[in-house]
Amino acid sequence: MRKVFQAELLTIGEELTQMAGLVADAMERAHTAYAEADTEVAQEVIAADARVDFMQTQLDERAIDVLALQGPVASDLRMIVGSLRMSASLERMGDLARHIAQLARLRFPVTVAPASVAPVFAEMAGLDVQIARKLITLLETRDLEIAREIVALNARIDDLHASVFKTVAGPDWNESGPRTADVTLTSRYLERYGDHGVSVARKVNYLVTGEWEPGSGAL
Amino acid sequence: MRKVFQAELLTIGEELTQMAGLVADAMERAHTAYAEADTEVAQEVIAADARVDFMQTQLDERAIDVLALQGPVASDLRMIVGSLRMSASLERMGDLARHIAQLARLRFPVTVAPASVAPVFAEMAGLDVQIARKLITLLETRDLEIAREIVALNARIDDLHASVFKTVAGPDWNESGPRTADVTLTSRYLERYGDHGVSVARKVNYLVTGEWEPGSGAL
Repeated sequence: MRKVFQAELLTIGEELTQMAGLVADAMERAHTAYAEADTEVAQEVIAADARVDFMQTQLDERAIDVLALQGPVASDLRMIVGSLRMSASLERMGDLARHIAQLARLRFPVTVAPASVAPVFAEMAGLDVQIARKLITLLETRDLEIAREIVALNARIDDLHASVFKTVAGPDWNESGPRTADVTLTSRYLERYGDHGVSVARKVNYLVTGEWEPGSGAL
Repeated sequence: MRKVFQAELLTIGEELTQMAGLVADAMERAHTAYAEADTEVAQEVIAADARVDFMQTQLDERAIDVLALQGPVASDLRMIVGSLRMSASLERMGDLARHIAQLARLRFPVTVAPASVAPVFAEMAGLDVQIARKLITLLETRDLEIAREIVALNARIDDLHASVFKTVAGPDWNESGPRTADVTLTSRYLERYGDHGVSVARKVNYLVTGEWEPGSGAL
């Protein structure tokens, strides 16, 4: 029984890793669609998100099955419950990538972001993709140095997010209402994606150390 | 053992109900702070959100304790895992109410929303509060008619959310960049709050019926 149990736990871990890979690809391609007003790529990202949603449902079901097996010890339970939280965060990351793609599709053939903020969004999306790819390694290795790197990448995203609002409030901002709204939402989506990545990293850190803040002293 | 188990399940149910009550109050007061530029109320809402966060952590811990007891059957497990998902949604509702309060505080002594959209936000916030209050009854009674009512209230919120973007895109919109950004975020927060309420309602519906859509045929 214990063997079945360990095998199932392993599968849950692999599913989380796969989800992280899918949402990393989703954000990478969503930003391409967004920056290049490519409605076909946007459409693909939107369609692909169903796969992430399905994986979350599947992982939930598997977790319930595993819990029904005899003999999980407290640390196993913590790991399973932690996995449920992580799958929820990863699913949201997929949604946020989809939202970026939806904005691209909505404004096609025009690009969503004006030139004044497009490079900032490119940087934010790049950091988001880095965070998701680091999650894959973090989940595989549980090397907590990676959790700290994720927190640091996200701090940079937060700074860029704040800089977008400064640009919008600046004297040179002459964009229309809808364009300002699009820019606001884009920045919010990119920022939230990173936050969810940090949630996953924190959860891994917690499962390994029992502490919530990944090396908070070092940041 | 079974008795302890049932008592713990009951406590989890009560904690979810309490969380729904707290986030209903939070949104009601956050909107007061927002509409009346009342920075003191805003401050209170922001401070009170820690209580909701704490309740979620506590509920997670309790769920792990309950799972460690002997003998949960499949339906119990589904209920416990469902509770974890519901507490996460309720916690997010608290965050979104806090975000509304934070906008009020940020722009004090000016009110955040221009007169052209303030009544729409008042209606959206009112619907959000109704949803949260209905969640209390839904969680207590498991009367699925209430789940359907929540879905219907949220559909109205979605319409209002769309109407805000129409106003922003209209010829009479002459607001500044930051004000447009604030309006965009406000609408998004109010809309997401309702979505999370629907997630909780769907989860209750699922736990009772095994079906995801609360009376989708009737909507």
